[in-house]
Amino acid sequence: MIYKSEFELIETLTKEFEIKKTPFVNTIVGIGDDAAVLEYNDTHYLLMTSDLLVENVHFDPIYTPMHHLGFKSVAVNLSDIYAMNGIPTAITVNIAVSNRYDEQHLKDFYYGVKAACDSYKINLVGGDTSTSVKGLFISITAIGVVEKKRLTLRKNAKNNDLICVSGDLGAAYAGLQILEREKQIFLENPATQPELSQYNYVVGRFLKPSARKDIMEYFLLNDIIPNSMIDISDGLANDLNHICKQSNLGAHIFANKLPIDYQTIKVAEEFEIPYTTYALYGGEDYELLFTLKPQLYDLIKHDKDKISVIGFMTDKQNEITMETIDGQTVVVEPLGWDHFKK
Amino acid sequence: MIYKSEFELIETLTKEFEIKKTPFVNTIVGIGDDAAVLEYNDTHYLLMTSDLLVENVHFDPIYTPMHHLGFKSVAVNLSDIYAMNGIPTAITVNIAVSNRYDEQHLKDFYYGVKAACDSYKINLVGGDTSTSVKGLFISITAIGVVEKKRLTLRKNAKNNDLICVSGDLGAAYAGLQILEREKQIFLENPATQPELSQYNYVVGRFLKPSARKDIMEYFLLNDIIPNSMIDISDGLANDLNHICKQSNLGAHIFANKLPIDYQTIKVAEEFEIPYTTYALYGGEDYELLFTLKPQLYDLIKHDKDKISVIGFMTDKQNEITMETIDGQTVVVEPLGWDHFKK
Repeated sequence: MIYKSEFELIETLTKEFEIKKTPFVNTIVGIGDDAAVLEYNDTHYLLMTSDLLVENVHFDPIYTPMHHLGFKSVAVNLSDIYAMNGIPTAITVNIAVSNRYDEQHLKDFYYGVKAACDSYKINLVGGDTSTSVKGLFISITAIGVVEKKRLTLRKNAKNNDLICVSGDLGAAYAGLQILEREKQIFLENPATQPELSQYNYVVGRFLKPSARKDIMEYFLLNDIIPNSMIDISDGLANDLNHICKQSNLGAHIFANKLPIDYQTIKVAEEFEIPYTTYALYGGEDYELLFTLKPQLYDLIKHDKDKISVIGFMTDKQNEITMETIDGQTVVVEPLGWDHFKK
Repeated sequence: MIYKSEFELIETLTKEFEIKKTPFVNTIVGIGDDAAVLEYNDTHYLLMTSDLLVENVHFDPIYTPMHHLGFKSVAVNLSDIYAMNGIPTAITVNIAVSNRYDEQHLKDFYYGVKAACDSYKINLVGGDTSTSVKGLFISITAIGVVEKKRLTLRKNAKNNDLICVSGDLGAAYAGLQILEREKQIFLENPATQPELSQYNYVVGRFLKPSARKDIMEYFLLNDIIPNSMIDISDGLANDLNHICKQSNLGAHIFANKLPIDYQTIKVAEEFEIPYTTYALYGGEDYELLFTLKPQLYDLIKHDKDKISVIGFMTDKQNEITMETIDGQTVVVEPLGWDHFKK
């Protein structure tokens, strides 16, 4: 999960970089979308994206099985390719490990990487391994292609577009909270066995998220091209804000339309936090957030298991509002989860 | 510098990965060369390569200026593209930093990244920043293209090929030794100013190596296509061994033909280590090692400032021999520097 100041930092650090013309694979879109867009051929663009996963920042080794970590590291990268409406084709995997990890840990990690490569039909084509003085660092780069006419950027949302999300929201963060709670109980009393079975869905959403390949395929089969799209890695509020900012628009959403699993609601009740907070600020769901022209409503309304329409784009620049369950209209700020801790 | 066991580890971890056919950007060569080779168009392949730089493994923050680190991180990746006889076009940069580093450190790092992007005419198109609990981690991925007929792999060396290297060898490791020595002196007596001016060349070779773009251009201008090529990151002995192994050949080289700078020889004398050891095992020079058909000798013999012919390929599989300066023939084992420490 990246918070606002970090986005600003990347902007500061890279603002001096101008896009140069190159003789091949010319850059069409550089930093600022889910993936870079590069010239490929007459019909397709090349996509390129890269992500870091750092021990004790993105994952806690105490409750993270290495094969899930391998799968997740790949999936979160491919999610960025799908968020461009693209097809991933190859990855490189770099990994730096401290001496806390042995060869079996690495084999388990690569077992998960292979499961993801097989599941998403991509090739592992390179990478680097290194020791680290402390901690485990994973860096993956994915490339893919997208048909030129199907490329979906953040910046092309239109006023009155339907705002849609795939799957359900907030579950990954609910799962993380459960894992953190069980970790504390375990640390206080190592004889306790964690009781996770009733939380299997939310915990699974955090430990082994899927990238929504099926949504990209659904668009292709139904001849749908979203006007804009992003993957939800930083929470709905933050990622919808990216679409609003880059499209110079606002958004209005409805709390009672947010897709939230009953396990997420149960965790929200346990932690005494409104469940809409999970959906808005949870992060790490890796669902797709996209906007469609209103005329497509009839086409997608029968696919509620896959896609939820949660609101519409407005012309109120950079303002996200939400109609709460009791009918009030509130402003939704693009903040990190920490702002909403009790 | 990667030693043998790490190569074996990568092989173990990735041996279950089979190359699948993909609908686009099909993988031609996966893991095992300087860069992956992917289908691009009728005339060109796409290249992709990725490298890690880890604090206190690949660099020591005490004597590494951040802008040099930024430049070097890019250059070592591009070196892998040039080693395929390719033209780099774009990179992604991932960086994880501990709270020891402030925004100015990052700005300096990106200043170096930008200098490299400008120098090699490539675009920075993406990346990720993260905090780390401890240490600085840099992961860069580069893509590029190569004309199909100019692609130069490790595996196509031919018996009797001339073995050639660009630039000079061993200087980077000599520079590292000087930096390590001055660091110890500084730690013992922080009032001491390091005396580096007489070592400026070797220290510069370690801190800010160049990628040999000019050699790729030289080949193009002179219509030369090496039979095989690799960049020298792990020392001549190790990298020549990769060419031998992958080409099922051996090599014979001449100690008195190894290009070694006088500063490297001076450092070798100070440390009482034979200077050929620096050239054979030093690593991190990022020069290009390549083999040419013997008929090309007349064409390149006038370019001794750029290219040295150091020996020839033999049919003695996996055996590297060297004629020493006093005329003896010795076997050169592909070992890490540590084996040759006094």
